[in-house]
Amino acid sequence: MTSERLGDTAVLRLRDLGYRLPPQGPADSKYVAYQRVDSSIYVAGQLPYVDGLLPAQGLLGGDVDIPQAQELARLAAINALAVAASAVGDLDRVRVVQMLVFVASAAGFADQSTVADGASELLLTVLGDNGRHARTAIGVAGLPRNSPVEIQLVCTEAAPA
Amino acid sequence: MTSERLGDTAVLRLRDLGYRLPPQGPADSKYVAYQRVDSSIYVAGQLPYVDGLLPAQGLLGGDVDIPQAQELARLAAINALAVAASAVGDLDRVRVVQMLVFVASAAGFADQSTVADGASELLLTVLGDNGRHARTAIGVAGLPRNSPVEIQLVCTEAAPA
Amino acid sequence: MTSERLGDTAVLRLRDLGYRLPPQGPADSKYVAYQRVDSSIYVAGQLPYVDGLLPAQGLLGGDVDIPQAQELARLAAINALAVAASAVGDLDRVRVVQMLVFVASAAGFADQSTVADGASELLLTVLGDNGRHARTAIGVAGLPRNSPVEIQLVCTEAAPA
Repeated sequence: MTSERLGDTAVLRLRDLGYRLPPQGPADSKYVAYQRVDSSIYVAGQLPYVDGLLPAQGLLGGDVDIPQAQELARLAAINALAVAASAVGDLDRVRVVQMLVFVASAAGFADQSTVADGASELLLTVLGDNGRHARTAIGVAGLPRNSPVEIQLVCTEAAPA
Repeated sequence: MTSERLGDTAVLRLRDLGYRLPPQGPADSKYVAYQRVDSSIYVAGQLPYVDGLLPAQGLLGGDVDIPQAQELARLAAINALAVAASAVGDLDRVRVVQMLVFVASAAGFADQSTVADGASELLLTVLGDNGRHARTAIGVAGLPRNSPVEIQLVCTEAAPA
Repeated sequence: MTSERLGDTAVLRLRDLGYRLPPQGPADSKYVAYQRVDSSIYVAGQLPYVDGLLPAQGLLGGDVDIPQAQELARLAAINALAVAASAVGDLDRVRVVQMLVFVASAAGFADQSTVADGASELLLTVLGDNGRHARTAIGVAGLPRNSPVEIQLVCTEAAPA
């Protein structure tokens, strides 16, 4: 299954950036990829998997540098967008409300905002006004599978254009 | 006061697992146990208290091992469910939307997902489809009272069966 | 631009405590100060800036003590309230739903709740019943610009009195 449709404007912008929406597999048996309440779509926390693999592991301020982490933030955001697109039908119907960016941080690392900017800029570029989100970026002690970045989105279905 | 009613299917399933919903005391004076907006019920972050005591303290990857932490995650989730049940009347009316699992993690601990699975499996077993939740698990530097686990839920009132 | 109006009861209570709502500048270009879905207003994570400067930096259990951090929590909460007030028109129309308090914590620091109490008490004093919020306090490895505290609010527009 894939959430991509060739006519999607947002998917084309994503391709222009060199990315694609990953296909959505069967849900994990212990939780679901998203859940709705009223108009809100809570997307489960996403790691920057590419074809099931993490491109990097470790901490900012340690093994991972900021440009790498910005790319990981973009990849995690894309994975979250793919879930949201599967919820509302296609990426052009996704509006992002809020993004939580968790950055695995060694002692003294204080540049979580710059890492998060990687994801924020991608949302704006790909979704335009629908990508305008409230954001919180924090530094955490560690993340599942030693991922340097994890992203959680709250989205909603965009009003028809 | 207690949220339990003997006829509750979910409460019976919880008892079959060896747990009970704790009674809800008077709210803390500085914040409330839950707050609503539209259909959403935000439950305040819950520690794995049992009768007012934490069964364990410390960090994963340090003093606390994964099976212990899974049990703490179950206990924190039950405390959150008790709050949600008090909000909607009984546990059978609780639908979980999203769970945030905070795992106090020593350097290098990367198995927050397995800890969180303890809580996720309990939600599914006890609530069935109403327990299907989006989830985010992260590793944090520390938690109040040195608790190894803290859980925050967003719930809603389930549609009548 | 300022969100303050002299007639606001809440703004007057804030002044009695020695604080003021900061003016709202132009939004950051990469994300927005708040975003709405249904009745919820998600406020972006706020640092305890005063006139663009952080009054302190570092970790709890390290460079920053609890009374300092409680003051920083109050300042971050006020910055979040200023955003919410700009969203709904004035501070008297703000109802707080949920507060996430991130406390940058050195190893072993376990008193995040006491730090968060600084912000919780301010919300109750300034907003009365509209300040009654669900809360989650956690200890994180680090925060942007080495801030000791960051606060994220979900708010809504209060029902007319």
